[in-house]
Amino acid sequence: MELGMVGLGRMGANMTRRLLRGGHQVTGFDPNAAARDDVAKDGARTADSLQALVAALPAPRAVWVMVPAGKITDDTIDTLASLMTPGDTIIDGGNSNYRETLRRAAALQPKGIAFVDAGTSGGVWGLEQGYSLMVGGDTAVVDRLRPIFETLAPARDKGWGHVGPVGSGHFTKMVHNGIEYGLMQAYAEGFSILQHKEEFALDLHQVAEIWRCGSVVRSWLLDLTADALGKNPTMDGIAPWVADSGEGRWTLQEAIDLDVPAPVIAMSLIARLRSRDSESFADRLLAAMRNEFGGHAIRKE
Amino acid sequence: MELGMVGLGRMGANMTRRLLRGGHQVTGFDPNAAARDDVAKDGARTADSLQALVAALPAPRAVWVMVPAGKITDDTIDTLASLMTPGDTIIDGGNSNYRETLRRAAALQPKGIAFVDAGTSGGVWGLEQGYSLMVGGDTAVVDRLRPIFETLAPARDKGWGHVGPVGSGHFTKMVHNGIEYGLMQAYAEGFSILQHKEEFALDLHQVAEIWRCGSVVRSWLLDLTADALGKNPTMDGIAPWVADSGEGRWTLQEAIDLDVPAPVIAMSLIARLRSRDSESFADRLLAAMRNEFGGHAIRKE
Repeated sequence: MELGMVGLGRMGANMTRRLLRGGHQVTGFDPNAAARDDVAKDGARTADSLQALVAALPAPRAVWVMVPAGKITDDTIDTLASLMTPGDTIIDGGNSNYRETLRRAAALQPKGIAFVDAGTSGGVWGLEQGYSLMVGGDTAVVDRLRPIFETLAPARDKGWGHVGPVGSGHFTKMVHNGIEYGLMQAYAEGFSILQHKEEFALDLHQVAEIWRCGSVVRSWLLDLTADALGKNPTMDGIAPWVADSGEGRWTLQEAIDLDVPAPVIAMSLIARLRSRDSESFADRLLAAMRNEFGGHAIRKE
Repeated sequence: MELGMVGLGRMGANMTRRLLRGGHQVTGFDPNAAARDDVAKDGARTADSLQALVAALPAPRAVWVMVPAGKITDDTIDTLASLMTPGDTIIDGGNSNYRETLRRAAALQPKGIAFVDAGTSGGVWGLEQGYSLMVGGDTAVVDRLRPIFETLAPARDKGWGHVGPVGSGHFTKMVHNGIEYGLMQAYAEGFSILQHKEEFALDLHQVAEIWRCGSVVRSWLLDLTADALGKNPTMDGIAPWVADSGEGRWTLQEAIDLDVPAPVIAMSLIARLRSRDSESFADRLLAAMRNEFGGHAIRKE
């Protein structure tokens, strides 16, 4: 079917390519002309503005928004809404907070524009392996977009699903990412323990490769970990500084709001915060307290 | 090659079957006659005592011990050692603490009996899919046993490896299980958050199935989780009480001994302890403290 794609970064461009390979017609827009040219080479039509994009699509239009969460998503949806007509649909495939999604859907409803949230997992591997899609929205609208989801997913009937009303797709994707934090941290801690056991001089890449086959901890994240350990077993040149892009925080906030104890997801977020707290005020204060009550030595800077 | 197998429970019996299918000759011993009869039907020779087992094997003997960790393993190895002769090998495939393994290897060395630790993962699925094996021991001894490992593993050159000196196999398996605790807890918390979000009425089995294909959190544990949620989405009849068989504790103790922060592995163990603390004294005391300083109501039993 015909789809507009807004945002031709790593995710949007690869999704455009996968849709083109699947026989869909995609018109892409990105403010960066080079990004537009890249997908044009693969057969996409392109538009040099949101106005041109909307004008190029036949009604009822469907436009997939694949831009960073937050203000850029808001601005994009606001502009699209001012250009689109009743019966059109906007799909937000980004990592939006589901509360924002609920707000946006409510704002679009009076205009007759449908809103669908498609939580998207798969990263840079999605082009070849397909994207895992958690879709929220009205059934009639999701059904109309089914050919798109079936092409983006790993298989027509696998790796994607209509999970519930609008907002539920991003909610599910948020929790997916919270779980991801916990899984990553569990592997990281385990390999750190192995690495510190000097007397056994373990080859961490070998261990990861062993575990990939037949062990209880085998997973796609372990496959990637094995790859990383094979390329750089000592993690040379990689600072011990871990970013977070928000979904772990949201998951924890949601767990608190729902009175759900989620200690491992919480600790995996806190571990990332700790990785960036190299000047830890708390640790200085702890050292000072030990000195106060016990005269324990303070290590000077 | 020829191997003795001591312990024909779920693990030992299935490993015996996989070895028989691979063309090895296995003599099995278990104090339970029915367990012996079961593997005899599949082509194993059996012995009705450790004495008879050792007598049935040609020197240099190799005996795989697959019994519960702790005293039973100790008793089995002590008895075998009193029956075996220099040049023989004992393989401990159970979940022994690696410190016990180091102690046992040292005790066997003066007798000229080699000791190999083979941390074994794969559970009840190992018969068909193969076992992930982390092997510790002297290179010459491990090399001699190579045909056994190649048959038990998912493939000759996959899913098993000689990771280091004696003790390193059980050490690596212990950390594997520590990671497993963290992974399991991360999934459990995530699905609990999804389950508590009543407004979206999510189908947890559907979400698990979506995630199995193309998502970042796909894994073998997720496959099993999807299966469990498919059979029993509300977890009806399953008490919220989680056992632990020791390896999580050992991993945490080791992390502490090595000064390695492992908060997620620690929390995943603590979550299991908490699941069994339904009469929590700490929670009663917390409620009492809130009453003391703030007059907050106590919920009466």
